[in-house]
Amino acid sequence: MSENNKDMEHKRHTLAHLLAAAVLVDYPAAKLTLGPAIDNGFYYDIDFSAGGAPMEADLKKIQKHMRKMLSAWTSFEHREVSPEDARAFFAGNQFKLELIDEIAAKGEVITLYTAGNGTKAEFTDLCRGGHCENPAAQIPADSFKLDKIAGAYWRGDEKNPMLTRIYGLAFADKTALDTYLHQLEEAKKRDHRKLGKELGLFSFSELVGAGLPLWSPKGTILRQEIDAFVQELRKAKGYQAVTIPHLAKKSLYETSGHWNKYSEDLFKVRAKEESEDGEEYVLKPMNCPHHTQIFDAQPRSYKDLPQRYSETTMVYRAEQSGELSGLTRVLSITQDDAHVFCRESQLRDEIEAIWDIVNDFYGKFGFELKVRLSFHDPAKPDKYLGDAAVWRETEALMQMIAEDRGATYFIGLGEAAFYAPKIDFMALDSIGRTHQVATIQLDRLQPERFNLTCINEQNEKERVIMIHAAIAGSLERFAAVLIEHTAGKFPLRFAPVQLAVIPVADEHNAYAQQVHDTLTAAGFRSELYADNDSMGKKIRGAKQDKLPYFIVIGDKEVADQTVTLESRDSGESEVLLLTTLVERLQIEL
Amino acid sequence: MSENNKDMEHKRHTLAHLLAAAVLVDYPAAKLTLGPAIDNGFYYDIDFSAGGAPMEADLKKIQKHMRKMLSAWTSFEHREVSPEDARAFFAGNQFKLELIDEIAAKGEVITLYTAGNGTKAEFTDLCRGGHCENPAAQIPADSFKLDKIAGAYWRGDEKNPMLTRIYGLAFADKTALDTYLHQLEEAKKRDHRKLGKELGLFSFSELVGAGLPLWSPKGTILRQEIDAFVQELRKAKGYQAVTIPHLAKKSLYETSGHWNKYSEDLFKVRAKEESEDGEEYVLKPMNCPHHTQIFDAQPRSYKDLPQRYSETTMVYRAEQSGELSGLTRVLSITQDDAHVFCRESQLRDEIEAIWDIVNDFYGKFGFELKVRLSFHDPAKPDKYLGDAAVWRETEALMQMIAEDRGATYFIGLGEAAFYAPKIDFMALDSIGRTHQVATIQLDRLQPERFNLTCINEQNEKERVIMIHAAIAGSLERFAAVLIEHTAGKFPLRFAPVQLAVIPVADEHNAYAQQVHDTLTAAGFRSELYADNDSMGKKIRGAKQDKLPYFIVIGDKEVADQTVTLESRDSGESEVLLLTTLVERLQIEL
Repeated sequence: MSENNKDMEHKRHTLAHLLAAAVLVDYPAAKLTLGPAIDNGFYYDIDFSAGGAPMEADLKKIQKHMRKMLSAWTSFEHREVSPEDARAFFAGNQFKLELIDEIAAKGEVITLYTAGNGTKAEFTDLCRGGHCENPAAQIPADSFKLDKIAGAYWRGDEKNPMLTRIYGLAFADKTALDTYLHQLEEAKKRDHRKLGKELGLFSFSELVGAGLPLWSPKGTILRQEIDAFVQELRKAKGYQAVTIPHLAKKSLYETSGHWNKYSEDLFKVRAKEESEDGEEYVLKPMNCPHHTQIFDAQPRSYKDLPQRYSETTMVYRAEQSGELSGLTRVLSITQDDAHVFCRESQLRDEIEAIWDIVNDFYGKFGFELKVRLSFHDPAKPDKYLGDAAVWRETEALMQMIAEDRGATYFIGLGEAAFYAPKIDFMALDSIGRTHQVATIQLDRLQPERFNLTCINEQNEKERVIMIHAAIAGSLERFAAVLIEHTAGKFPLRFAPVQLAVIPVADEHNAYAQQVHDTLTAAGFRSELYADNDSMGKKIRGAKQDKLPYFIVIGDKEVADQTVTLESRDSGESEVLLLTTLVERLQIEL
Repeated sequence: MSENNKDMEHKRHTLAHLLAAAVLVDYPAAKLTLGPAIDNGFYYDIDFSAGGAPMEADLKKIQKHMRKMLSAWTSFEHREVSPEDARAFFAGNQFKLELIDEIAAKGEVITLYTAGNGTKAEFTDLCRGGHCENPAAQIPADSFKLDKIAGAYWRGDEKNPMLTRIYGLAFADKTALDTYLHQLEEAKKRDHRKLGKELGLFSFSELVGAGLPLWSPKGTILRQEIDAFVQELRKAKGYQAVTIPHLAKKSLYETSGHWNKYSEDLFKVRAKEESEDGEEYVLKPMNCPHHTQIFDAQPRSYKDLPQRYSETTMVYRAEQSGELSGLTRVLSITQDDAHVFCRESQLRDEIEAIWDIVNDFYGKFGFELKVRLSFHDPAKPDKYLGDAAVWRETEALMQMIAEDRGATYFIGLGEAAFYAPKIDFMALDSIGRTHQVATIQLDRLQPERFNLTCINEQNEKERVIMIHAAIAGSLERFAAVLIEHTAGKFPLRFAPVQLAVIPVADEHNAYAQQVHDTLTAAGFRSELYADNDSMGKKIRGAKQDKLPYFIVIGDKEVADQTVTLESRDSGESEVLLLTTLVERLQIEL
């Protein structure tokens, strides 16, 4: 965690105390329990069973108290107390008493934290620390906002009493808070589950099950175009498609090591009978072990390297059904996966090629990319497999590539996989959210485990190295991110329907058909709106479906053999000769 | 079974008797057991434990006895005998005695069949009948041939004694026998497992498991081109791609009815935890139930019909590992599947469209198609679901379509599915073998079970009908058939590598590169053979890999800016200007 993050966490934690203090103003009988900082702010769980609990409408008033008290909180002090003193202080609050007993039982020090010492706003709570030294000076009064009220069981256990949880949002300043609120509102409008339904992209069926999306023809076009774009970029870099099944014997994952580490997350499969050697089957949770077997199906000369295998295929990972949500958490994950088998000397070129693809891919959709070089933590050498010198060399190579490319990057110490460093890409979307997307991951472990070699110039077996290189990552997750990033207004190439051709009246049908046919023949996904609905309804339909363009055909167009191209994005229209329409659109693909 | 087939079966059964009689000439102590007709001939299982058994080398002699005795077999008579008489006749042969006891226990009639009555070749066997009346006249002496010897347990049970099984081949006449022998030999040369390895198309891995093929880059190109061709034909008929996962809850198959009928053949899947309602997951054995859920994801107007969904995706069916073989029996079956949801009134057009696709697809590869109209058996009305009038109407429609198309067809009574009639296509391959391939299958059952409807002109719910319409069927099986049909010489479009460009010497490299680049830019899969191997070796390589064309670049080609296109299929060469090469090749795609 960076210093910056720690600072924000201290502010949020401080605000949790402030919330508690403010609640006690109007609800003196309330029993405080626990109040931590969270990602976007803070909360406090409070027991109001002794008297009326606040409603959402009361949050404003509590917030007012908070602001007022904050100005008095110019200090935050703590003192160590004995268990007895602590128990006396919190007498009657069974929650705090339970916490005190636990701390005492572990023989740890008990500390009480007091803010606004000696003022009317003085407030003391049982706490381990982590606050602002001077909240009044450090926390802008308009940088936080109480958000909502929810129920929560004491310590998350449904056998315990139900408490009232009050949530607050808190950011560095008002601008950051407003940005977040705007993001929230935008994200709600853009929610991929909502837009996915409105645009008819995918659905779920109770009979099929949660986390198993069914993609309609329109949704499938979106998926296929995303994938085709990745494959096009890959083909230019010498990648070749391969094909594997979704099943493998357990032995494949025992060899790869996944069975030992992740067997809990694997879907186990029973055949009609156990296979001859008594092994179980597994639904593949990733593709690399299968791909090693294609590499290993024949001896490889150094001249045949790199072998670059790509495949877009579903993998399956067991998730608890409560964790499944829209397209972001699914059981069937379509990976646009790729694995490069190469020599150490080829690493740089291969990493550069993948980086190019990542840039081209995310650039096409207008995502800004940040790069994290995920390196090992030198303070914890035992966490990592392999030679320290090789780690240093590989990380130096990665950093050199990042420098030479002029990339915006930062180093994430301790973020490496245990078997190799990686390059992680973060995409900033149009409403300011960051999504972890592509990864370039080196792998020296699987080549060891599967004993993958090439025959080198000396006619000796030489260990190869693998690179994992998914671009979109998961098509489901990427589609979700893209839907929310674009609010469903996909770039021309990716729009399931690209244009609507709308004749004004029956006498324009023939020419409209000609325009539609011209577009279709050129490979564009055009729809002819030739039924009896009104013009207004047709245009509204094209807009609701967020088509990149629509074309209205009236007398003038028929007479001039032109089309008027109305753009979704610019909101402007363009008059073109029919003969130049296709060319005009192709430029935009 | 047609009369023709029955006739051949009688001949083969008669030859099994003749084999037994001929064996006794040199091995009088041999104990006969059972000898049936089989698909390509006959066999007899014989116990030679009393004396020396024949070896493969002895088959010629036995065959000679058969031919000689056949001429005396002008009759085949039978008589009913009491169990006692039968036991006396076969005294000392514990196998026949066991059979007699079984027949007697069931209270059935025991019959002895005698051929060549009163001649030196007279032979009597326990039998239920089904022979030629006059073998000498009906069976040409050169229409059969003893084939091989194998071991077989009495009644197939390994706890029983091992017997000697002698196999014979038998066809209508010498020509048919020779054709079959030639086919066998050709099939051996063309075995897709052998060619698949030689051409580097696919492999198997012990770690992954039997029946789970791994497709190399070359094999994947073959698969993708086959699939792309199907999709191209489908797109022209208005099919739209959809995407489903490979998993579903058990409830999907309970609703479809598959669980009840086929649960034995399904792969059951265990998640980390049972899903909330305690249901198991299943690896999909077919795609139709999922596709019904896409149709049913929203209300459908009659105006939206037909909905035509296509998807190439793997299905999984549990097979015993002993049954797995090459690509013809696999656990992971890639179906180029499609389902049409339409109204009864749209059936004819939809069937015609699929039939067109089937014709275009198989025609492209030079397969001759036979059509079987698989109708219900009117003698067994209880076997079929639904209204008899609807059956008659639908079958009449199918036959009318077949007639109107001028198709070569025959009617297979009793070959219908229990829920609807179907149209089955049989492909004749280049070495005379017939493969059952595509099917047009109507389905009124799943629309019932999933309650699939459209809103019709009267604003009422109307039951829709489904059509299942895979074209290649299984890509694995089709690839196997195609490899053997073409002996690996794939048509240009489907060849993983389409051309090799071979410079004679270093000074031709630049122009060779230009030719290669021209081809690659036009989308052809060209390989430049620019390493130091000899010309002869390179040309042999191109031929071994069965490339449709290779191009040798020498002084003349460089000077004239031409290419000499050497054809694999015609064996001829063609001189072309480089500027016309791409155009010339595109015609052939």
